[in-house]
Amino acid sequence: MAVADHLFARHRTILEDAVEATRTRGYHSAYPESPSPKVYGESAAADGLAAFEAWLGGDFPVNTPCASARVATEKSPFGLDLGVRYPRVAPADVPTLMDVARGGMADWRDAGVEARVGVGLEALHRLHQRVFEVANAVMHTSGQAFVMAFQAGGAHALDRALESIAYAYAEMTRVPRTAIWEKPGREAPLRMEKTYTVVPRGVALVIGCNTFPTWNSWPGLFASLVTGNPVVVKPHPGAVLPLAITVQVLQEVLTEAGFDPHLVTLAAEDPADGLAAVLAVRPEVRLIDYTGSNSFGDWLEDNARQAHVFAEKAGVNSVVIDSTDSLVGMCFNLAFSLALYTGQMCTAPQDLFIPSEGIDTDEGHKSVEDVVAGVAAAFSKLLGDDKRAVEVLGGVVNEGVLQRLSDAAAGKQGTVAIESREVTHPAFADAVVRTPTVLVVGVDDRAAYEQECFGPISFVVKTGSTDESIEVFRRTAMERGAMTASVYTTDNRVLASMRTAALDAGVALSENLTGQVFVNQSAAFSDFHGTGANPAANASYTDGAYVASRFRFVQSRRHI
Amino acid sequence: MAVADHLFARHRTILEDAVEATRTRGYHSAYPESPSPKVYGESAAADGLAAFEAWLGGDFPVNTPCASARVATEKSPFGLDLGVRYPRVAPADVPTLMDVARGGMADWRDAGVEARVGVGLEALHRLHQRVFEVANAVMHTSGQAFVMAFQAGGAHALDRALESIAYAYAEMTRVPRTAIWEKPGREAPLRMEKTYTVVPRGVALVIGCNTFPTWNSWPGLFASLVTGNPVVVKPHPGAVLPLAITVQVLQEVLTEAGFDPHLVTLAAEDPADGLAAVLAVRPEVRLIDYTGSNSFGDWLEDNARQAHVFAEKAGVNSVVIDSTDSLVGMCFNLAFSLALYTGQMCTAPQDLFIPSEGIDTDEGHKSVEDVVAGVAAAFSKLLGDDKRAVEVLGGVVNEGVLQRLSDAAAGKQGTVAIESREVTHPAFADAVVRTPTVLVVGVDDRAAYEQECFGPISFVVKTGSTDESIEVFRRTAMERGAMTASVYTTDNRVLASMRTAALDAGVALSENLTGQVFVNQSAAFSDFHGTGANPAANASYTDGAYVASRFRFVQSRRHI
Repeated sequence: MAVADHLFARHRTILEDAVEATRTRGYHSAYPESPSPKVYGESAAADGLAAFEAWLGGDFPVNTPCASARVATEKSPFGLDLGVRYPRVAPADVPTLMDVARGGMADWRDAGVEARVGVGLEALHRLHQRVFEVANAVMHTSGQAFVMAFQAGGAHALDRALESIAYAYAEMTRVPRTAIWEKPGREAPLRMEKTYTVVPRGVALVIGCNTFPTWNSWPGLFASLVTGNPVVVKPHPGAVLPLAITVQVLQEVLTEAGFDPHLVTLAAEDPADGLAAVLAVRPEVRLIDYTGSNSFGDWLEDNARQAHVFAEKAGVNSVVIDSTDSLVGMCFNLAFSLALYTGQMCTAPQDLFIPSEGIDTDEGHKSVEDVVAGVAAAFSKLLGDDKRAVEVLGGVVNEGVLQRLSDAAAGKQGTVAIESREVTHPAFADAVVRTPTVLVVGVDDRAAYEQECFGPISFVVKTGSTDESIEVFRRTAMERGAMTASVYTTDNRVLASMRTAALDAGVALSENLTGQVFVNQSAAFSDFHGTGANPAANASYTDGAYVASRFRFVQSRRHI
Repeated sequence: MAVADHLFARHRTILEDAVEATRTRGYHSAYPESPSPKVYGESAAADGLAAFEAWLGGDFPVNTPCASARVATEKSPFGLDLGVRYPRVAPADVPTLMDVARGGMADWRDAGVEARVGVGLEALHRLHQRVFEVANAVMHTSGQAFVMAFQAGGAHALDRALESIAYAYAEMTRVPRTAIWEKPGREAPLRMEKTYTVVPRGVALVIGCNTFPTWNSWPGLFASLVTGNPVVVKPHPGAVLPLAITVQVLQEVLTEAGFDPHLVTLAAEDPADGLAAVLAVRPEVRLIDYTGSNSFGDWLEDNARQAHVFAEKAGVNSVVIDSTDSLVGMCFNLAFSLALYTGQMCTAPQDLFIPSEGIDTDEGHKSVEDVVAGVAAAFSKLLGDDKRAVEVLGGVVNEGVLQRLSDAAAGKQGTVAIESREVTHPAFADAVVRTPTVLVVGVDDRAAYEQECFGPISFVVKTGSTDESIEVFRRTAMERGAMTASVYTTDNRVLASMRTAALDAGVALSENLTGQVFVNQSAAFSDFHGTGANPAANASYTDGAYVASRFRFVQSRRHI
C-alpha cells in the first residue's frame, strides 16, 4: 500500500463522519475549539507561541523553486514587526512557477481520489498539531484576539477545510471508478466496461486576505488540491505566515507520500508587484479562489476569463429591528456582533433598520434612542474594561479602518450616537485598538448606509415602518450584496415577510438572536457561508457547486 | 395534496431508479428506444405522424404573451416546407418577455423541490406519450432518418432529460429541508433550527441547435426548470417544432398544477433578428444552455458575463488506428460512425490517424490504402442500396454542409480516396442526401485536418508512427477540442499511452469498437457526453457540475 493510501485509511473515520455531517447538517466539529490546557495539554500554548516566535526575523523554510529573492512584509496590528522573510515571486518568475506547479500534476491525477484525499487529511492533522502556532500567526497578521484566532483561524478553519474535502470526496466518488454496462440485445447483450477518472482543471490560484488568512483560504485550497489541481498560494502581504505554515506542512506531506512537493507553492510578493493580477490571467490557471475587495474581485471576474473564479467580496449586512421579547438580549447580541474583531468581519452587521416611531419590547415601547442606549450599555459592559475589551476587539487591521473611523467621527455620514474610543492593550503597547461607533441616519441618507463601510462603523437607519425596513434591506442586498441578514420581531407576519425578502435577495437570515449565537458566525457542516445568490459572493462554503467544477470526469470504455 | 405533489408521487419510482442509475452507471433506460408496434401499439406511428402533419401550415398553439406577430422558418431536409407559424419574439419584445418569465418565479421557488420535479417528470411522461409526433418533428427539422429521430430525438433525449432531473433532484436534496443544530455548552446546549431553501439563479435561456433540437436542449431546460428558474427557449429557426411541442407540454402541465404557464416560454425568431444575442445579455438571464458553433459559443462566453454559460461547441474528433484483431469489424464500425446522420453529429469522427507504413491486423499487415479500401467496402454494404442508405444517412441539414462537400471534392484539402455520392430518397423526392467522402492527407497538412469540417468529410492522416498519431491527437484535442476519441490497437503499451493522452486532453475514449457500439453514441446514465475539460464543451451531460450551480441554498436559523 502506498503511503498516501495509508494516510487515507488512517483518517477515513474523520472523513466519513464529515461527509455524514454535510448531509445531516447538525452540529459537528472534528477539531476542539477550546484552547484550554485540559483539551490540548499543559504545554501546548507555550510550545505554540515559541514555535511562532522562532520564525520571527528569519528565513521561512518553504520551497518556491522559481523565487530568486526574499521578502518580508508583515506587521502585527498588535505592534510586532514580524520580519519573516519568504521566497519572493517576482512577475518575471511566474512562467517558471507555472511549469513548477504543473510538474507533478499527471502523477497527482493518476494517484487517484483516495491518495489525494489522504494527503489533504494528513495535512489537516498536522496543522491541527500546530494549531497554537497557527493561531499566533493568525493573531499577529489579522489582528484577531488570541482566542478568536485560535477558533476562527485554527479549529473552525480546520473544520471548514475538512468540510470542503468531504464535499470534494463525495463529489468525486459519486461515480464509481469502473462500471459494467450491459444493454439487452436481440441476440446477445452488448457488454462494456467503463472507467471514470477524475481529472484536474489546471493550476489553482488561491488569493488570501488579511483578516482571515486561513479560514477563507483553506476551503478552496484543499478542495482544489484533492480534486487533482496543483495550487499556487498567493497570500495577502500582511498575512503571509499562516499560509506559509500551511504550504510548509503540505510540501512535507506530499514529499513523504512520494509526490512532487511543488504541487503546492507559496507565492509571496512585494506588494508593489501586484502579483495576484499577474498570476490570475495566466493560461495555466483554471481555478481561482479569492477573498477581498469588490474592486479586485470584479477585476478578476472581468479579466481572468480562462479560469473559474470563486470570489467572496463584500456586501452590506442588515439587521431589521421590528420588536423583541428580550431587549437586553437583543442589545447584547448586537453589541457583540458589532464589536467582535472590531467589526472587521465580512459577516458583521452594518445597517440596523428601526422604525422611527420605535419598537415594542418586553420592557414596553422603546424609541430608536432607547435602542441605541441599550446597545451603548451593552458596549459598556463588554468593552468598558480595557483588558476584557481587547479580547473581543483584537486590533485594527489597517490604516483604512482608522481613516473610516475618523471620517465617521467627523459626523458627515450621520449623527454620531455612540463614539469610538481608543483602548490601551495591556500586553502590547503599540497595538491599535478601537471600539465601534454607531451613527444614526434617515432612510433617505442612502449614500451613507448603502455602501460597505468596512470596520467598526454601523448605521442605525430610521425608517417609516418595518415594511419599509424590509424593502430597503431587500434592495440593498440585491444591489450591493450581503453576507448575512438578521431580524428581530415577535410578529409572525413580519417574520414571514423578512424570510421572503431574504430568499428574494439570496441572503442567509438569522432570526431573533438574543443568546450566544451571533449573526457573524457560521458553523462548518451546518451553516452555509455566503450563498452565491447576491453580489457579495459568487460561491458558498460549502455546497456542491463549490467543488463540482474543480475537476472533470473523463471516461474510457471497451467491450468485454 | 397539491397537484404537483401528486405528480411527484406518481413518478417517484422512475425518479428513484434514475438517481440510482446515475450512481451505478450501468445500463438504464426509462423510455423504450424501439418504435416497434409491439412496444408502442399498432396505431402509435400513424397517430404520431398525423399529429405532426396537423401542425403543418398552421398557427402553433403555444403562448408567448409578449409576441406581436408570427413567424415560419422551417424547411425539412427531406424537402417538406413545414410552414408552421410560431409567436415571434422581436428584439423590442424582450423586456416584456423577461417580465413575463419572472412573473411566476417566486411561487415556483416556494412550491419546493418535489413540486417542481413532479412537474418536470409529468412533462417527460407526456412528451413520451407524444414521442412519435416529436420524432417526426425532429426528423423534418434536423434531417435525421426516422428511426434515429425516434431514438436520439425521442427516447434517448427523454432519458437524457430524466438524467438531468435526477442529478438536479439529488443535488437539491443533498441538504435537508430542516436541521436541528445542537452545540454542547458549559451549562445548557445551544439549540437552533435551520431551514435550507433552494432558490433559483434567475431566468434561464436555452438556445437550441438545428441537428439535435431535443437531445441537446432538454437536459439544460429541465435542469434549470426543476431547480426553480423560469426558462426561455430560443430554438434554432430551422428546428422550432420539437421545442414548440416541448413548451406546449410544459405550459399545459404548469397550468394544471396551478403555476404560471409562462415559467416556460418559446422565443421563436425571424433569423435576421439575431435574437439569441439580444436575450443572452439581458441582466435577468443568469443561466444559458447553448449548443452550436464555436464562434457564437465564444461570443456568449465573452459577452453574456452576467450568466453562467453551459456551452457545447465543436471539436475535432480523432481515431488512432494502430492495429486490430478485426479488420472487418473496425472498418464497418468506422464506416457506420462516419455515415450515421451524414456525419452531422458533434461526436462523429473526423481524423483517422494511421501510420504510413500500415497496420497489423487479423488479416495480416495492411497498408493505409488497404484500410481505406476496407472502409469503402463497408460503405458499399451499408449505403450501396439507396433505400437502406437513407435510413442511415438521413438528410443534409444545411447548405454549408453541401458547400464543404463540394470543396472536398475539388481536392484542395487532400486526395479524395472515397467520393461522396448523391442518394435518391425513395419517399421524399426533394430530399438532399449524400454519402460521406474520405480524403487522405499527410501529418503536415495541419490546415486541412486540424479544424472542424462539419458534415460527412473525414481525413485519413498518414503519420510517421502510432506514437506520432497519439501526439497529434493530444495536441489537436487540447487546442481545438474534441467530443470523442477512439483507438484501435492490440498493443497494451499503445492502449496505455492513448488512455493517458485522452486524460491529458480531457476527452472520452472508446477502445476497439468493432461491434454494435459506436463512438458517436453516448448512453444516458452511463456515458458522459462531453467532459468540460477541453475547448469543445465547458460542461458535460450529466455530472454534478452541470446542475449544482443552477440554484443556491439560502438558509435561515432560529433558536428553539
